[in-house]
Amino acid sequence: MTSPSATQAGYLYQNEPTWSRSEKAVVARTVFDAALNRELHEVMQETKQMADQIKEPADLWDLEHHLTQRRKEIDRKYDYRYSQLTHVFGRLLYEGRVGEEDLRGLREDKLKLIRSFAEFLKKDAA
Amino acid sequence: MTSPSATQAGYLYQNEPTWSRSEKAVVARTVFDAALNRELHEVMQETKQMADQIKEPADLWDLEHHLTQRRKEIDRKYDYRYSQLTHVFGRLLYEGRVGEEDLRGLREDKLKLIRSFAEFLKKDAA
Repeated sequence: MTSPSATQAGYLYQNEPTWSRSEKAVVARTVFDAALNRELHEVMQETKQMADQIKEPADLWDLEHHLTQRRKEIDRKYDYRYSQLTHVFGRLLYEGRVGEEDLRGLREDKLKLIRSFAEFLKKDAA
Repeated sequence: MTSPSATQAGYLYQNEPTWSRSEKAVVARTVFDAALNRELHEVMQETKQMADQIKEPADLWDLEHHLTQRRKEIDRKYDYRYSQLTHVFGRLLYEGRVGEEDLRGLREDKLKLIRSFAEFLKKDAA
């Protein structure tokens, strides 16, 4: 999956929404942490499986490479800055890692940006 | 374990020995490959054990780091150039990865250099 270029993404030029205290604490932090935690547990499962199936030395360096890739991908993806959060949640929505129901409690201005970015990624991947 | 500095190691300035065809084929290649293979299998076992004991995300990146370190260490250690082989075998002898009996078939000029480097590493680590 390649990153969409900024020039294609019109919403990038919209004003950043402001986040209320309850949006931050109740929704954003909780949903963010839960999604990150789920993804880290996925990597833990993948790793145990890959290690279990190691049969030759080359498999070791495949596992090393996989871990490095996953670490970098997760570092990039989970960027908890309020200026980035609608993109973060948009991507997680697109990847099916969070559902619309998880985002209840966010105001419509954010939901609109989140859905719009998810939609954009979907079109970009098609 | 730190690398000994070249200035400390007098034998580095000795002439390189020449390797006969049988020394190369029968002893050096066989012993080298067997030791490398054993060490790679050690890493495979270590990795399976570490993966098995992964309980939290930090353990993932410890495993990644361990694999990177082991790969670099093995790359450095197993240098099959005839100009390096007495050091390679000297280190493997010092680490107990090859025994004197594995080196039967090498001429005394090489055995002397190999033992001398093993001895040097032992003193260096003391």
